[in-house]
Amino acid sequence: MKGIWLENKILSFRDHLPRPKPSQGEALVKVRVAGICGTDLELTRGYYEFTGIPGHEFVGDILRAPGRPEREGERVVGEINVTCGACPACRAGRPKHCENRTVMGIKHRNGAFAEFMCLPLANLITVPDTVCDDAAVFTEPLAAALEIQEQVPIERNNHVLVLGAGKLGQLIAQTLASTGCDLKVVARYANQQKLLAQFNISSIVEQTLPAGFFDIVIEATGSMAGFSLARRAVRPGGIIVLKSTTKGDVRVNFSTIVVDEVTLIGSRCGPFDPALGLLANNSVDPTGLIEGRYSLNAIQKAFEHASRPGALKVLLQISGR
Amino acid sequence: MKGIWLENKILSFRDHLPRPKPSQGEALVKVRVAGICGTDLELTRGYYEFTGIPGHEFVGDILRAPGRPEREGERVVGEINVTCGACPACRAGRPKHCENRTVMGIKHRNGAFAEFMCLPLANLITVPDTVCDDAAVFTEPLAAALEIQEQVPIERNNHVLVLGAGKLGQLIAQTLASTGCDLKVVARYANQQKLLAQFNISSIVEQTLPAGFFDIVIEATGSMAGFSLARRAVRPGGIIVLKSTTKGDVRVNFSTIVVDEVTLIGSRCGPFDPALGLLANNSVDPTGLIEGRYSLNAIQKAFEHASRPGALKVLLQISGR
Repeated sequence: MKGIWLENKILSFRDHLPRPKPSQGEALVKVRVAGICGTDLELTRGYYEFTGIPGHEFVGDILRAPGRPEREGERVVGEINVTCGACPACRAGRPKHCENRTVMGIKHRNGAFAEFMCLPLANLITVPDTVCDDAAVFTEPLAAALEIQEQVPIERNNHVLVLGAGKLGQLIAQTLASTGCDLKVVARYANQQKLLAQFNISSIVEQTLPAGFFDIVIEATGSMAGFSLARRAVRPGGIIVLKSTTKGDVRVNFSTIVVDEVTLIGSRCGPFDPALGLLANNSVDPTGLIEGRYSLNAIQKAFEHASRPGALKVLLQISGR
Repeated sequence: MKGIWLENKILSFRDHLPRPKPSQGEALVKVRVAGICGTDLELTRGYYEFTGIPGHEFVGDILRAPGRPEREGERVVGEINVTCGACPACRAGRPKHCENRTVMGIKHRNGAFAEFMCLPLANLITVPDTVCDDAAVFTEPLAAALEIQEQVPIERNNHVLVLGAGKLGQLIAQTLASTGCDLKVVARYANQQKLLAQFNISSIVEQTLPAGFFDIVIEATGSMAGFSLARRAVRPGGIIVLKSTTKGDVRVNFSTIVVDEVTLIGSRCGPFDPALGLLANNSVDPTGLIEGRYSLNAIQKAFEHASRPGALKVLLQISGR
C-alpha cells in the first residue's frame, strides 16, 4: 500500500508498504482523509523518538472486522490510545494513562498516513451521517480541546484567555465560546483573527495583554515562549492549562507559583463522543480551518505548508472524495 | 526596644529600635515568642528583598488597641497578610492575593523578631487558654499546612507522599495523618523519622520511592531538587502541591506534564481558625518540633541552628516565660 514512513526524523513516501493485518479484536480501516497535527511536526523535530507510519487524526471505513462482520462498512474515527487493560492505571479506571499503551502514529503503533491502518474495534467510533469527512477528521483535536472543560469547569463570569490561534487554539476557542465566558484569544496572524471573528470571538495581540487578569489561561501556542506569557497573564489564584507538547525544558520560578497560588494543569486527549456531538449539531465548525489538501506522495509539500507560521489545518486526502 | 534588623541579607541585633506606634485600626502587640521559618532563612539568602524587622510566626499580647480597649490584654496570634480592601482581588473576595498587600516580616511591613510589633486588629486572633505559647507559635505554619486540604480534597484511599520532614513537612504530615489516607513521608534525618514515628507516620527514604505511584505529592523540601523527585513520584493524572519558596528557577519538561496530565498547585498561607482548633483539641501537637530556644541577642546562633541540615523548629523567646 501507499503510505508515509518516518525514520530518524525523516519523512518519506513509500508505495510498497505492507498492508497491515488486524490482530485479535482489531479492525482493518481504509483511510479517507487524515490531518497533520502539531505533534506530527514535533515528531519530525525529534520531540519523541518514533519510527513507523505517523498520523493520528483520520476518518475512514472499516473494511474488515474479524468476528464482528456487522461493523464492516462503518465510517469511523478512532481513539488514538490503545490500552492493555491490566496495568495498575487501567485497573484503577484510568486507561488513558495505561503504562503499556501504544498510541497510533506516535508511540509503538503505526498511524493513519497510509491507505490502510488497524485499530482495536473498541477504539473505532461511528461517525453520524450528518458529519462530513472534512469535519469528522477534526474529532481527535476537538476532543483534546474539550478535555479542558473536563478538567476545569468554566463559568460564565470567568475571564478566559487562549494563547495561540493555530489549529488547536481555534478549536479550543470555539468550544469555550459556547460556555458564554468572557473569552479572548491571542492571535498573531490576520487569517487566524479573521477566522475567530467569523465566530464572534475577540482576538487580542500580545502587546495589549493585561497582566495578572485572567482566571484561566490556556497555553496552546505550541512554543516554549507560551508559558511565560501565560504566567504573566494569569491572575493570582488562577489556572494555566498546558496544551503544547514541545521538545525541551522551560525555566520556571516556582516560588512565585507558590506565593501566587497558581495551578498548572497538563491536558492531553479528550472524549470523542461529545466532540462528535458538537460536530453533529454544528456547535463547532472546524472546516474553516482547512487551508491545504495534499496527496500522500506530496508529503514534503504538505509538511512544509503545515510548518508555515500561522498555518491552520493541512489535510492528506488519501482515498478519492 | 530590642529587635532584629535585616538589611542587605545581614541580620543584626539592635537594642534601640523605635517602639512602633499603631496606625488607624491597628494594635500594639508585646511579643512573647516567635518562630524561625524557612522563609526567614531564605530572606537572608536573598529570596526576597526585604529591609526591616523579619519574623511572621509569633504569639503575644495586645498591649494597646486604640478605639477597642476591650481587646487589650488578649493573647493573640496574627494573620500575616495585611490587605487594602479596595483592589480588584480584594473586591473579588480574594484578599490573600491583594495587589497592595504588605506581609509582616516579609514585604513592606515589620515583623515579630522584636519586643513589640503592630498589626491590624482584624488580623489578630485570640488564642484559646488551653493552647500554650509553644503550641500557639505554630499557628501560622499549621494554617499553611491546612491550606493543602483547602485546595485538594484528600480521600481515605489516596496514596499521599510528603517530600521533606522538616519544620513544615512535619506539620503537613500530622494534618494529613488525620485524614486516614495512605501516607508516606520522605525523611532524611533520624530525628525527623523518630518524630514521625511518634505519630505513627511511616517514613521512607528517597532511594526506595516507587516511581509514578502517588496520587498526591506535597513538595515541602525547601530545596530546588524537590521538584524532580516529586515529578518522578507522582502518578499520571496525579497532583503535585508546591510548598517550597526557594530562590531561583527550576527546569521543567512541560511536554511530559501535558502527556501525563499532571496538575501542579502552588500553596501558600492558610486558615488560622481551623489551625487553632486542631491545637486546642490536641489533634496536632507541634511542640515536639522545638529543638532550640534563643534570646534576641543570640540571633546569629539561632539562625545558624535553624540552618543546620535536618533542623526542626528554633524559637526566639522574646519576653520572659
